[in-house]
Amino acid sequence: MGRYDLEYPKEATNTVKRLNERGTYSLETIHRIINSSQILHISFTSPSQPFPVILPMIGQMGSFDRPSADTGDPLDLYLHGYVSSRIMNLSRAQSDGEDPQGMPVCVAASHVDGLVLAISSFSHSYNYRSAVLFGHATLVTDEEEKMYAMELITDSVVPDRWRHTRLPPTKAELQSTGILKVRIASGSAKIHVGQAHDDKHDMENEAMRDSVWTGVLPIHQTMGEPLASPYNRVDVPGYISQFAQDFNGDNQQQALDAAKDQ
Amino acid sequence: MGRYDLEYPKEATNTVKRLNERGTYSLETIHRIINSSQILHISFTSPSQPFPVILPMIGQMGSFDRPSADTGDPLDLYLHGYVSSRIMNLSRAQSDGEDPQGMPVCVAASHVDGLVLAISSFSHSYNYRSAVLFGHATLVTDEEEKMYAMELITDSVVPDRWRHTRLPPTKAELQSTGILKVRIASGSAKIHVGQAHDDKHDMENEAMRDSVWTGVLPIHQTMGEPLASPYNRVDVPGYISQFAQDFNGDNQQQALDAAKDQ
Repeated sequence: MGRYDLEYPKEATNTVKRLNERGTYSLETIHRIINSSQILHISFTSPSQPFPVILPMIGQMGSFDRPSADTGDPLDLYLHGYVSSRIMNLSRAQSDGEDPQGMPVCVAASHVDGLVLAISSFSHSYNYRSAVLFGHATLVTDEEEKMYAMELITDSVVPDRWRHTRLPPTKAELQSTGILKVRIASGSAKIHVGQAHDDKHDMENEAMRDSVWTGVLPIHQTMGEPLASPYNRVDVPGYISQFAQDFNGDNQQQALDAAKDQ
Repeated sequence: MGRYDLEYPKEATNTVKRLNERGTYSLETIHRIINSSQILHISFTSPSQPFPVILPMIGQMGSFDRPSADTGDPLDLYLHGYVSSRIMNLSRAQSDGEDPQGMPVCVAASHVDGLVLAISSFSHSYNYRSAVLFGHATLVTDEEEKMYAMELITDSVVPDRWRHTRLPPTKAELQSTGILKVRIASGSAKIHVGQAHDDKHDMENEAMRDSVWTGVLPIHQTMGEPLASPYNRVDVPGYISQFAQDFNGDNQQQALDAAKDQ
């Protein structure tokens, strides 16, 4: 991270209106939420239909121009998909046609860290981290940038995996894989942490205090024991077992930290 | 479920174009994915801005007209939110104004059940379940339906929680909470299960077979020990400990089942 904690500008598009004490515009915070999410939801509109469309995709933020950039720096979002999928075709058509900037998209990622149970059901809440980004999607055509993005995305699934796979990619693999690049226009995140809280009249309700359990049910993702494929001949390598251990430890800690009374 | 496994009609909006062997239109399958997701992503467009918007929300499918309906029956989606949030205001404005059907939305839910690691990075995959629904959102104004939806949504977070909280809701609670009802127009789901697979040329590559670990890293959500609030006076009740136990057992089993070689 640089000397400043960079923020996305607050505009009509991204301003968190509700419970704004939970809102943040920090690039570092937003990018971390996106990059630690295994699935991103991408929304776009299509002139041929009345509903916006959401697709689940795999992606990661990075900078091809400056690969050493930190999480808190201005970054692009790279998304992986099948080359002739609808989102790829629409992005191609829009950047070739009316809008060279690319297709307007919204990208969302959310993590649940716990269920917060209060006396009143209306004071129930989640501990969560959620982020949205707004930007324009174009297809990556530069071969070198495409390779950069594929390595970035593969290593986001399992750190250090790319160089442990069969390389280089075949021509067919490269041709069948599309990479979308989203240039970010703005973004925001919402984070909620803490223990249960109730309004004064519920806190003073002795009968309810004596009968309703209040607290947090912490929730986190867990990775189980690796399950080798029928054709695997190799012991679980260190970079995978270390990843699983870090994943489990970090996620559990995140859920426990979120549940602390603030 | 009824005598038939009902399906949403296949139309341009919802047809799964890519890898269609994974696509399904079964109401039962789609509704289960939505109902077991703690956070739903809702997308809508606003005339005042260029990007579609995604919001994370809590919701559940049900039928106010026929509360005994099964998961595989035609259902509505109820979403919970703050009454003067942007999505509520837009829904209200649209159904009062140009489109009495309500605001067109897309709703998505995705679960990751495992990371599938192959010899080629291009044969990597996820085991996952994802669903999208398309429909029109309107604000619920009927008091009885609003109460039905709030109970439905609270009990979707922790089964049986509603009747263990302070009831009835106060007037202020009811007034500050908005419920959106999405009438579903169509939907689809994509599911991927299985062990790692590689193309023939990678399977015949002895050097790679001897060096690359292939298999599945199963992933599931885990609920940790309940953490009581500072003002809690009650032991963890059975309906909560049972829920935590079922949640953990079911999710782990789902991830393990998904990783089985097909």
